[in-house]
Amino acid sequence: MEMQAIGQVSSPRTEPLDDDWDSIISTITLDGSRFTEDAVRGLDAFSHVEVVYVFDRVDPQNVQTAARHPRGNEDWPKVGIFAQRAKGRPNRIGVTVCRLLGVDGLTLSVRSLDAIDGTPVIDVKPYMVEFAPRGEVRQPAWSSELMAEYWDSSASS
Amino acid sequence: MEMQAIGQVSSPRTEPLDDDWDSIISTITLDGSRFTEDAVRGLDAFSHVEVVYVFDRVDPQNVQTAARHPRGNEDWPKVGIFAQRAKGRPNRIGVTVCRLLGVDGLTLSVRSLDAIDGTPVIDVKPYMVEFAPRGEVRQPAWSSELMAEYWDSSASS
Repeated sequence: MEMQAIGQVSSPRTEPLDDDWDSIISTITLDGSRFTEDAVRGLDAFSHVEVVYVFDRVDPQNVQTAARHPRGNEDWPKVGIFAQRAKGRPNRIGVTVCRLLGVDGLTLSVRSLDAIDGTPVIDVKPYMVEFAPRGEVRQPAWSSELMAEYWDSSASS
Repeated sequence: MEMQAIGQVSSPRTEPLDDDWDSIISTITLDGSRFTEDAVRGLDAFSHVEVVYVFDRVDPQNVQTAARHPRGNEDWPKVGIFAQRAKGRPNRIGVTVCRLLGVDGLTLSVRSLDAIDGTPVIDVKPYMVEFAPRGEVRQPAWSSELMAEYWDSSASS
C-alpha cells in the first residue's frame, strides 16, 4: 500500500533520544500543495490530537520482526516487536496523543510529540475521550519502568 | 512510502456500520510468511492493544481533503477531515484501542475493533497508560453526540 505524507514535523529535537518528550514543543505543517485551511477547520475545539507518523530515519534493514529486549535492556524480558512500541518495527509507524497548543493556517503546534525534526506525518486525528480504553488497563512492570521518564525525566527519582 | 500489511482482520461484521462495535469480537491474524510467535511474545501481559489499520474499502476517489459534516449530519458543523475520524481520509488509516482477549499463535482475539472483515492491519502496539493524554481533555459537543452509540447502542436512550 502506498502512503503519502500529509505533512512534516518541525522539532527542536533532531536526535531520537529516549526521554523527556514533554519538554518538546514542535509543529506539524500540512502539505500546502494538497490541503487548505478547510482540512483542519474545527480542530482547535479539541485539546489533544493523535498523530500518526513514520520513523523514517530507521533503516529498513534494522526493522525487527521477532523478539528483543526493550531498549536493549537485559533487565527487561525479551518481548515481541508487537508487544513493545520500539521504532524499529514493521512499517515503522508511531502513534502518539499530544496536546494541541494552536492551529495557525496549516501549522499545528503541539506539545510532547515524540518524533524528531523532519518526520513525515501520515495522519492527524482529533482525540476523543470515547477512544480511551474501556475497562481496567493491565500492563507488565517492564513497560512502566521504561516509561518512567519518557515524558518528564524529573518525574521519577 | 510503501506499507505492507502485517496481518488481516477476520470479523463477523462485513459492512461498515456506524455503531455498536463493543458487540464485535474479531481476530487479527499476522502474516505467517513473515512472522513467528516471537513477534507477539509477551503481548498477552497487556489488557489492551492499539491497532493501526487501513480502511481499504474506501475508494481513493472518495477520500476527502477538506471539510464536511461528520456522517453527513447537518446538525453538526462542517469540520476538516483532520478534525474528525471519518474513514474517507488521506491515507485511509484507522487507529483503535481494543481489549485483547487472547493470543493463540499468530492470532489475536480482540473486542471492539471497528474494522470490517478482511481489513489489512499495518501495526499492533501494546497499550500503556502512559500513552493516555496528559492534562484535561476538551472536545466539541458534536463529537460526543457522534460517539454516543459508537461502542454500545443501548448506552444512550
